[in-house]
Order: sequence, then structure tokens, then C-alpha cells
Amino acid sequence: MAEELNQLAQLAYALDTFYFLISGALVMWMAAGFTMLEAGLVRAKNTTEILTKNVALYAIACIMYMVIGYNIMYGGGVSSIIPSFSLILGAADNAAADIVAGSDAYYSNMSDFFFQVVFVATAMSIISGAVAERMKLWSFLLFAVVLTGIVYPVQGFWSWGGGFLSDLGYSDYAGSGIVHLFGAAAALAAVIVLGPRKGKYGANGEVKPIPGTNMPLATLGVFILWLGWFGFNGGSELKVSDVDSANAVALVFANTNLAAAGGVVAALITARLMFGKADLTMALNGGIAGLVSITAGPNIPSLLGATLIGVVGGVLVVLSIVALDKLKLDDPVGAISAHGTAGIWGVLAVPLWADGATFGAQFIGIATIFVWTFVVSLVLWMILKAIMGIRVTEEEEMMGLDITECGVEAYPEFTRTQ
Amino acid sequence: MAEELNQLAQLAYALDTFYFLISGALVMWMAAGFTMLEAGLVRAKNTTEILTKNVALYAIACIMYMVIGYNIMYGGGVSSIIPSFSLILGAADNAAADIVAGSDAYYSNMSDFFFQVVFVATAMSIISGAVAERMKLWSFLLFAVVLTGIVYPVQGFWSWGGGFLSDLGYSDYAGSGIVHLFGAAAALAAVIVLGPRKGKYGANGEVKPIPGTNMPLATLGVFILWLGWFGFNGGSELKVSDVDSANAVALVFANTNLAAAGGVVAALITARLMFGKADLTMALNGGIAGLVSITAGPNIPSLLGATLIGVVGGVLVVLSIVALDKLKLDDPVGAISAHGTAGIWGVLAVPLWADGATFGAQFIGIATIFVWTFVVSLVLWMILKAIMGIRVTEEEEMMGLDITECGVEAYPEFTRTQ
Amino acid sequence: MAEELNQLAQLAYALDTFYFLISGALVMWMAAGFTMLEAGLVRAKNTTEILTKNVALYAIACIMYMVIGYNIMYGGGVSSIIPSFSLILGAADNAAADIVAGSDAYYSNMSDFFFQVVFVATAMSIISGAVAERMKLWSFLLFAVVLTGIVYPVQGFWSWGGGFLSDLGYSDYAGSGIVHLFGAAAALAAVIVLGPRKGKYGANGEVKPIPGTNMPLATLGVFILWLGWFGFNGGSELKVSDVDSANAVALVFANTNLAAAGGVVAALITARLMFGKADLTMALNGGIAGLVSITAGPNIPSLLGATLIGVVGGVLVVLSIVALDKLKLDDPVGAISAHGTAGIWGVLAVPLWADGATFGAQFIGIATIFVWTFVVSLVLWMILKAIMGIRVTEEEEMMGLDITECGVEAYPEFTRTQ
Repeated sequence: MAEELNQLAQLAYALDTFYFLISGALVMWMAAGFTMLEAGLVRAKNTTEILTKNVALYAIACIMYMVIGYNIMYGGGVSSIIPSFSLILGAADNAAADIVAGSDAYYSNMSDFFFQVVFVATAMSIISGAVAERMKLWSFLLFAVVLTGIVYPVQGFWSWGGGFLSDLGYSDYAGSGIVHLFGAAAALAAVIVLGPRKGKYGANGEVKPIPGTNMPLATLGVFILWLGWFGFNGGSELKVSDVDSANAVALVFANTNLAAAGGVVAALITARLMFGKADLTMALNGGIAGLVSITAGPNIPSLLGATLIGVVGGVLVVLSIVALDKLKLDDPVGAISAHGTAGIWGVLAVPLWADGATFGAQFIGIATIFVWTFVVSLVLWMILKAIMGIRVTEEEEMMGLDITECGVEAYPEFTRTQ
Repeated sequence: MAEELNQLAQLAYALDTFYFLISGALVMWMAAGFTMLEAGLVRAKNTTEILTKNVALYAIACIMYMVIGYNIMYGGGVSSIIPSFSLILGAADNAAADIVAGSDAYYSNMSDFFFQVVFVATAMSIISGAVAERMKLWSFLLFAVVLTGIVYPVQGFWSWGGGFLSDLGYSDYAGSGIVHLFGAAAALAAVIVLGPRKGKYGANGEVKPIPGTNMPLATLGVFILWLGWFGFNGGSELKVSDVDSANAVALVFANTNLAAAGGVVAALITARLMFGKADLTMALNGGIAGLVSITAGPNIPSLLGATLIGVVGGVLVVLSIVALDKLKLDDPVGAISAHGTAGIWGVLAVPLWADGATFGAQFIGIATIFVWTFVVSLVLWMILKAIMGIRVTEEEEMMGLDITECGVEAYPEFTRTQ
Repeated sequence: MAEELNQLAQLAYALDTFYFLISGALVMWMAAGFTMLEAGLVRAKNTTEILTKNVALYAIACIMYMVIGYNIMYGGGVSSIIPSFSLILGAADNAAADIVAGSDAYYSNMSDFFFQVVFVATAMSIISGAVAERMKLWSFLLFAVVLTGIVYPVQGFWSWGGGFLSDLGYSDYAGSGIVHLFGAAAALAAVIVLGPRKGKYGANGEVKPIPGTNMPLATLGVFILWLGWFGFNGGSELKVSDVDSANAVALVFANTNLAAAGGVVAALITARLMFGKADLTMALNGGIAGLVSITAGPNIPSLLGATLIGVVGGVLVVLSIVALDKLKLDDPVGAISAHGTAGIWGVLAVPLWADGATFGAQFIGIATIFVWTFVVSLVLWMILKAIMGIRVTEEEEMMGLDITECGVEAYPEFTRTQ
């Protein structure tokens, strides 16, 4: 009998660990989604640069989070900024004997690290699109080092690591605020310091569209994100090995899918009413906004509720994109709207469905995350601006960053301008 | 001891639910596959439109199937057309106590919904390619509302929901007929009502090739479909948590892979013999045809048998594509051949291997699915044609649907004609 | 009580089988990764051909490995070259009764076949890029038949099938040597027999860059490979269903991810120092090199150790690419460097961390794999050259292989030269 209990505990541990790892792999895949989305929405001459930036930021995020971020976020906040040598130099994972003896641990610590590390990269990817076509590559990567190593983990600790936001009752299942609003806030700071792309806003206040160069890529990016989000939200239940957890994970999958669907349909119709056409880029951003909106609480609403949360997200993202352009805040891919505006809506929607959550705690959470991230990012961007500059020269912007920053054209045989 | 049995039942439930969810996520990914395949095979000027159509149809399919389709298909057929409020407004999933007490349920109901909902989208995606480059976007989307909400679920009920085809012994494991022939039949009706693209067929009966604009995209699409099919077929065993089920799922994976491989090689060689070149588009359609062919019964044949089923599918798809062009049925991506012709072959191949299946029942299944879908679709297309039109004007077709329907060019910097 | 033990054994079997199948599906996905990477790095006029080659080689690899390769590799080496009819004509998988009774088998045999079959395709994909833009398609496919059916399985047997290399203590967890160096060695033989592309090396020894046509595709390819590698390495633990195995799989996922990250950062910085720019293609090859480097032993090093293994791989791949060009060995995608040079490093790094491994055994393994593969491939290429030729004519090379071999242009509306 001891033998059976032993095996049972081990099997449950194995299933939860495997579930974590597959979820994490799906979240890693979102890095490809952001990369394709952004590469599709910029001009050909800035494509290689944004590809390079995305590959590099993913790598940097993983390394920095390993070295110090994970320990800050789950080891005690900013006071744990000293690297945890036991983590990076090879701490033993949970011992089989302890699991069998009924330890509280029920999955591999390393699978938790893997799942968390890919979340950081997601947060960082959001920023990359908003600063496209005019930021210096190396300044961006330096910013990524600090953001993923310290700024993200510190606020992550406040909610998910046991800090004051979790004490206050702030409820954010998979991170509409902690990940998406976070990314949007840092992006907003960047866009303000950087200024708009040359030619985006005319002297008389008119907004000039700068079409993206490759719509299939952008669409592929959204499908990749949609798929990856099943890991992002689905894995955030943190357990699958009993009936209630499995039911919760299943609801999260179904709701995540329907919120995205609602976002697509709502944005498509909103854009049709406002602009008269079936605007693909709005539909795509609607899908992302639906996903971001449901992320704060995909485990509670009914299927119809989740769809409606996505619908509201889809409407909001179109309005937000138009509004930001009115404010001359130039976000080439709509990242601030899709992740920030929809992220705030997602966090605020939680108390509509979840018993424990309050609007007060949600509002404090939003304000805290936004202020912390925006202010620190603003300071960082200004420091970088002072030290090494963050914007390429006008001539470089005209030539395109692919030549000036990377020395590699994205489509050397296609573009007509050469 | 009660405790162990309790945990065992819960663990098995969790594993089967997780298996369903991962399979469903892979099927959702097929939506990206169809999108890339179709976007690669049309001309640049119609690319944004087909991207928009595919993203939107996936979203519509998910919402309509939630609202009424699932209840029709698994709740009693067309008499269940009233939405199931318990489903959409939040029915409780299986209770842990019932599972432990030995309920027949062995996985989350919501995971079943998720798995089924992504199947509908697949059926609808098939149609999208066949009507490319000339159909009005909004007419298509309206058709999608009816097809995914009612037409698909009604015939799905006949086989998988416990209706008369299942009583007759019609055997269709994952839907060579129920999903793929279904999609092809609706596509055929559309192609007949729509007519061919301008310039496709010359006055003297010659067929003019209209090359697709982006072969890497089309190839990516097929690889995505290939991967997603492991969920499509692999998940259709509906259980993995005991030795016999696990063995069956493993055989399904291996057979699915080999049937696709057989289809690729056969189509490549057939095309080489017929046209003298290694025609990539035929190889790609051969892979899909192999996958469609094995879908009706991937759990029975040997590895060699599965390969041969795929080989026959791969030969048939090439012949079918040529034949349809002779009939002046213009299917820009070969969807009717890859899903319809190969789907019929797949359904008919089942009795060659499976003990219980009969050619009689399989034939009745094919005829029923085809007649129902074709006739209802034909009527729907004609109603849509009368009310709002289904074909764009000649001038719009010349300009391309991207400008006229979406207002967004797919590749604004690449195409030479601007 | 018997009943519980029965269910426990079945559940563990199901979980391990499912883990194998998902891992295998991820490895299959790597075929898409290689295809996109190579299609992005060649010129537009040779893109359809490389797409066709990759789809076809995957199909051929699966069929040949089914017919004879698997039996050679795991059934006794080259003496088992007679097809195993029990495998291909439908051997029964493990019986539930045996599993319950405590059989050594703990997962479906068919899931093992599926996992192994996708590995062969990976090995073959490596070669395809190195011979791009000048090799005859059908000669390459004929080579693939022999390589995947016999050459790979014979050396695979030596290590993983119980042959003399495993007896000697050669340690290669998921195949830095057995898969990646293998592919690179066959590619090197091909490159030597084929010669460089016209115009690659000038009369005065200068190396002329031939830029790839589509950087987003190449980047997508690397992200696909990165994701697929979680199956490649993660599945190679061969078991997940107890605490120690689950911990090992989790460490493999985390280390695989960090080695790739290390490779990206190291290659990016190395290229910056050497060429003055943030060279995307080097960063991409750095990521692959990091993945290849960790593949021989991802289950042992600490997170920091894995990162450093990747860093060394990332530096080496840049130096190796430059060195091969000095030797006028023309490898359009850098496959020999990323898989061969980094593969050797990966195999040699194992004794740094693993207790049992010795440099002597590792060196013998490298030498054996390289000599066997290189010599047999060289002979095969020369036979093919004598019989049917392996290189297209100068005129065909100028026109591009898409027209001459496939009759289908990859981007008929984009390229400026038509």
C-alpha cells in the first residue's frame, strides 16, 4: 500500500511538471508570435532590425531572469537582488522521498523556473514593437537587461511573489496587469521620450498611415500568440492533476479561445463602422486585445462572459489606437493599446465575475504597476538617452535600420526602392 | 485505500483532460495552417482579404458553435437549436465526488467543448480557399455564421452525436467525411455558383495557370497542418489513460505521419510523370490528401497500410485537380480535391482494414454528407447571391480584393504592379 | 488492491507514451523550422526548390526509416537490414496484461517508433541547406533514400541501439554527435564534391556575400527549431512518470532554453566585434549552435553551465563560418558550422560535467561518426555524380532551380529581375 501511495504521488508530480513544461514551451512560442507580428507591421527597411531585437531580447530576458530576476520575484523582492547561487549553480530539485512523504511541493522547481522565465520574455516583447523603426538597437537591448533583470521581477514580486499587492487582494490570474500593462507602460514611456517616426504626423495634425510591409507575417504572428496563450493562461492554474484543477484548466482554454474570437469580431465590426472596410490590422489587434482582456481572470466567467470580455477588449483597442494617434503617440504596431488599454480593462473586469475580487484592490494594482513601470522606465530611457542616445539619426531613419544597425537587408530582392 | 482509488480516478481524469486540451490546441493551430496555405497560393492583391477571411471565420466558427452548434451536434440534432444556457452561461463541470464514485465521465466536459469547437473551424477553413480571389468578404462571413452554427452540427450529429449514420454503422474516426468532405461539398457548391476567376479558362478551353504569390507561406501552411493533424487524429481516440488507449493514440500518430509522407511522395512522382517537373504545389496538396485519407481510420491499418492509403490519396489529388480544371471548376488552392476526393477515398478505405465497417454504410455516409451539405450550401449561396451578391465586380476583381474589401495591401512595398 | 496497482501501471504507461508523442510532434515541427530557415537564406530563384527538397526529404526519411532504418538502428545494426515485417505490417503493441504484471516496457512501442522516425528527418534536413542553390533535386532525394534508410541507422545503432560506441562509454544524450555532427559530416562531403556556387569566391580569394532573400522566414525557422528542440532534448530522457525523471526533463527544458539564449548573445556580440554590426544571421546561427552544443548533455549542467556551453557554441559558430569561407567550402546556410563545429564542442563538453563520461570515449565517438558518415557520403555522392550528375548546369544555376527543377516560382510577383 505504501508502494501505491508512493507511485501515486510521483505520478501526480510528473503530470503537473509535464503540464508546466508544455505550457512553458507554448509561452516561449509567443516570442515567435511577437516577432512575426512586429516584422509584418513595420516597413521592409526596418525588418531585420526588429527581428534581431526580438531574438536578442528573448535571449537576454532568459539570462537576466536566471541570474537575478527569478530570485527577486520569488525569493523576496528587491532585497534578493544578489544572485541565488543555488539556483544558477545547480540546486537539487525536489527529492522523490519528500514528495512521497507528502511534501507541499507537487511539481519540479525547475519546471516552475522554466515557466516563469518565458513570461519575462513576453513582457519585454511587448515593448519592442512600440519603439520600432527609430530606436537604436543597442540602447534597447541595454534597457532590456535592466527591465527583465530588475524592473519586471520587482513588481512581479508584489503580486505573485507574496508582496503587498497580493496582501491587498489584487487579483490577476495570468497577468493582464503584471505582464501586459507592465509592458505597455514601459512602451509608453519609451514612445514619449523617443517621439514619433518622421512623417507620421503632418503639420496640420493629420495622421499619415505607414502601412506594414507583410500582412501574412503579421497574421501568422497573431495565430502564434493565440496558440501560445493556451500555455500562458492554461499553465497559470499551476496544477492539473485533480478533477477540480483539470476542470479549471479546461475552462481557461475554452475562455481564452472565445475571448480572442470575441475580440476579432468586435474589432472587425468596429473598424468597419468607423473606416468602412474590413481592416485586417484592427482584427488582429482585436484578437490580441481579447486575449489580454481575459488574462486577468479566465478561470471564472462563463463562455458567454469570456466572449463578451473579449468583445469589449476588441472595441477598446480600436478606439485606443485612434486616440493615441490623436495624441501623436506613435506606436507602429498598436502594442500600447492592445496590451495596456485592454490590460486595464481585463484587470477591472475581474470583480464583475470573481467573488473575492474588489474594484478597489484592482485599481490599486493597476495604479501601482503603471506608476512603478512608467516612472522607472522613463528614468531609464532618459539615462540611456543622455549616455548613448536612444534614437537613430534622421539620415539613418530614412535609410532604414536594417542597413545602419544590422548590415543585413530583410528582403534584398523584393523592395522596389533599391 | 479509498484515498488511493480517489486519487487514481482523479489522475486519470486529469490526464485525459490534458490530452484533450493539448490536442485541441493543435487543431486550433490548423487554422494558422489553412491561412498560410491559402495566402501563399493566391495572388498578392487578394492576400489581405484571405487573411482577414480566415481570422474572422475562425472567430465566427468558435462563437456560433458555442451559441448553438455544440448543442445541436451533441445535444440532440436540429431539435436542439435553442441555445443551451447551461453551457454558455456556466454549467458546472463534472464534480470530483462523482468521478471518484465511478461516474462514466472521465474527462472535463469543457475540454470536450474546446476540442470540438476547433473542429468546426477546420471545416469552415476548407471552403475559404476554394472561393478565393472573387468572393465578397461579408457574404462569405454570413455564410460562415450559418454553416458553423447549423449546417455542420446537424450532419455532425448524425454520425458523432448519436444520429442515424452512427446507427447504420458509418465509421469515420476523425472525420474524412464529417469534416473534410463536408468542407469540400460546401466549397463545390460555392465554386459552381460563383464561377471561375476572370482569365482562368480561355475561350478555346485552355487552362491558364495563375501562380500563387508566396510558396514559403504555402509550405509553412502544410507543415502547420501536418503538426496540427496529430491533435486532430490523435485526440479523436478520446482517451489516453490506459494501455490500450495509449497504444491506439501512438498508432494514430505514427499512421498519420506516414500517410502524409506517402501522399507527398506519390503526388511528387505523379506530377513529375505528368508534367515533367517536381511540382511543389502538388507535393503540398499530396501531403494534405494523405492526411485527409487516413483521417477516417488511422487507428487500424499497419504502418505500411497507412503509407499506402496516403499514396493513393496523393495520386488521386493530382488527378482530381487536373479533372476539376477540365470541368472549369476553379478552385485556386485545390481544396475540393485535397479534402473532397481524398476524403471520399479515406472513408471508403476504412472497410479494407476495419472489421466492423462495411462499404454499404460508408457509401451511405458519403452520400448523406455530400447531398446534405451540397444542397443546403447551394441554396444558401443562392439566397446570399439574391440578397447581397456573392461575387465582387469585374473591376474589383481586377484591382484585387485587398484594396476594395480591406483597404490594406498585403505587401505594399514588394509588388511590381504599383 | 490489485486493481489499484493495475491502474497505476496503466496510468504511468499512458503518461510516458503521451510524453513521447508530444515530444515527437515537436521534433516533427523542426522539419518546418529547417525549411523556413533554409528558404530564408537562399536567393528567391532557388526557394521553391529548397522547399520541395525539404518536404520531400521529410517524407522520404519517414518512409525509409519505417521500412528498414528503425530495424537496423534498434534491431541489431546492419545485419538487420531485412525489413521487419512485424513492424511494418502491424505488430501488436505492449499488452495491458503484461504492463500490469510488471513488464520492463513502460511506454508504447509505436510511440518510440514515432519519436525515432522524426529524428532521422532532422539529421537529413541539416544537409539540405549546405547544398542549396546548385544541387540537382532528384540526386539529392536519392541520396536521402540511402542516408535515412541505412547510413544514419547503422551509426545510430552503434550508440543508441546497443553497439560498440555505447559499450565504450560514448555519451551523447540527444545526439550532438549522432544527429547533428552526422548531418554536418554528410553535408561537408557534399560541399566538397559539389564545389561552391558560381560567384561566391572571387579570383583573388575574396568572399562575396550572397544575401538570403527573406530574413523573417529565416528567423521564424530558428524560433521553430528552438521550440521543437524542447521535444528533441526533452523527449530524450525517455521517461517522465516519476519524480526523478520529471525533474530531469524539467532541467533539460530549462538548460536547452538557456544554451540557445547564450548562443544568441555570444554570436551577436562576436559578430559585432568582428564585423561592426548586429548581424542577424549570425545571431540565428548562434542560437542553433547553442542548441546543438547542449544536446549531448542537457541533463547534467547547472543553468549557468548550460548558458556557458551555449556561449561557447555561439562564439565557435561565427569563427567556423568565417573559416569555412576561407577554405572556399560554400555552405549557404552555415549548417556545417552550426551542427558540425558546435556538435563536436557539445560532445566534448559532456565530460566537463558528467561523472561517467571520458574525453577518450567522446573523442572516439566523434571520430567514428565523422569518418563513417563522411566517407560513406563521399562515396555515395561520387557514385551519384558518375551516374546521374549532382550539380545543375551553369545555365540552370544562373536561371535558378525553381524554374528548371520545379517549374514553379517562389515569389512570382515580387522579384525585380523578371
